[in-house]
Amino acid sequence: MKTYLECIPCFMNQALRAGKIAVSDEETIKLILSEVGKMIVDIPMENTPPETGKLIYEKISEITGIKDPYKKIKNDNMNEVISMIPKLREIIDNSSDRLLAAVRLSIAGNVIDLGVNRDFNILQAIQEIMTQKFAINDYEIFRKKLSETDEILFLGDNSGESVFDKILIEEMGKKVVYAVKEQPIINDTTMIEAKYIGLDKIATIISSGSTAPGTIMKLCNEDFKMRFNKSKFIISKGQGNFEGLSNFDAPIFFLLRAKCPVISRDLCVDVDSIILKYQRR
Amino acid sequence: MKTYLECIPCFMNQALRAGKIAVSDEETIKLILSEVGKMIVDIPMENTPPETGKLIYEKISEITGIKDPYKKIKNDNMNEVISMIPKLREIIDNSSDRLLAAVRLSIAGNVIDLGVNRDFNILQAIQEIMTQKFAINDYEIFRKKLSETDEILFLGDNSGESVFDKILIEEMGKKVVYAVKEQPIINDTTMIEAKYIGLDKIATIISSGSTAPGTIMKLCNEDFKMRFNKSKFIISKGQGNFEGLSNFDAPIFFLLRAKCPVISRDLCVDVDSIILKYQRR
Repeated sequence: MKTYLECIPCFMNQALRAGKIAVSDEETIKLILSEVGKMIVDIPMENTPPETGKLIYEKISEITGIKDPYKKIKNDNMNEVISMIPKLREIIDNSSDRLLAAVRLSIAGNVIDLGVNRDFNILQAIQEIMTQKFAINDYEIFRKKLSETDEILFLGDNSGESVFDKILIEEMGKKVVYAVKEQPIINDTTMIEAKYIGLDKIATIISSGSTAPGTIMKLCNEDFKMRFNKSKFIISKGQGNFEGLSNFDAPIFFLLRAKCPVISRDLCVDVDSIILKYQRR
Repeated sequence: MKTYLECIPCFMNQALRAGKIAVSDEETIKLILSEVGKMIVDIPMENTPPETGKLIYEKISEITGIKDPYKKIKNDNMNEVISMIPKLREIIDNSSDRLLAAVRLSIAGNVIDLGVNRDFNILQAIQEIMTQKFAINDYEIFRKKLSETDEILFLGDNSGESVFDKILIEEMGKKVVYAVKEQPIINDTTMIEAKYIGLDKIATIISSGSTAPGTIMKLCNEDFKMRFNKSKFIISKGQGNFEGLSNFDAPIFFLLRAKCPVISRDLCVDVDSIILKYQRR
């Protein structure tokens, strides 16, 4: 997905939010906003938003000297979701379609995305999404293709969400390669969080090589690119991965909640819609 | 009111909105955002937000060559509200407190502020505000001081709102000096709109001299400053005037809806609260 004009004020909002998480003094945050403001002229509109996001978060780290400002938030989120696992399993046990319930839970996990919205109530979000109508629903294709596949390439998003992904992976019962970000970027899952959650016990964890808050192919390593190109079943979680991959012709299932007006418009859905979209037709 | 960090992304949003109103090509709007982005470093946080707003809207005019991008919107808004006047008078006629109803209508008019929010339904907004509880309610002081005053200095805000102000002025039945902006800035009322509405028939219209989207004393002309300093009863409409005057010790009644989180926090009220606040204690 290209960068839309609406993304530019959003970049400023993200810089403000990340700046406030990293430091508390107004002067430094003002400096961050000033520096990000100067970067706007060089943002190529044909690039995907996560590519610019990467530059902005790198600038914040450079100014504050803090490499992983979301570390505590990531840990808090993971621990909160981990404590909810029995409840989440209960939701699946009580459902008439276990796979669909696990898919919905995995999308519910996508709500926990501090890059877009800091205010959320996890349990409330889950309850809403378990019954929300899909705006794009390729679940039947998902179920059929899943039954025909041996291996899944699963593109993780944020760290709290990865706990939900673990439940979906268990429910699917297939061999999974779980791709994480190369280094900390916003609240995205890296190797550290994936291992903390125990994803390494049920999947092969690899780094995509991407240092952006999304899967940006030109930033990815050769191993990932090879796996991506060979894969017959890819699950892509969240907005950042969608933004990076929406123009690729590949067997991708996008699982996300469309949280911003730009992505919603790109997908022709309302804001806050839930999506299970198969990319290849 | 000082500029808060949250104002900075909001400036970018305002620039985007105004840019889209002025022109339609992405390249020019991107240029506007780039130029406004470069301005952030020079924004003094101790200045009021309308002072920066002025620089931003001037930059947009400079880039697009359009001095009054909101001209059509202002006209449409005024005509829409003018067509509603019989209905508005009916609301007052059917109220148990005519003055309070006119005050509430005048605040309802403040919702028509395209600098902050483009999407609104006038009639729905009016109906809500006619029954909404005031978050700050100095109406009793307003009524008492009004009965003791001979002349009111009324600081207008946007042009659609000025039609509502006209009804309040008629209802108050006092001599009124109605201050407008020196030249077009967003959708604020200037001499042209004030005369179009017919405010010159019931009040003395003066220019405050301010070229910002708010009453910024250091931009005001000597005549206005003299009137302001001598006045015993000032009505200040809207956010921009509040932002410019909130630190002045003067007999001002602020009538507004707090539409943004920053002003709401400054006033210690919820977003979308309606306010009738007497400044001098």
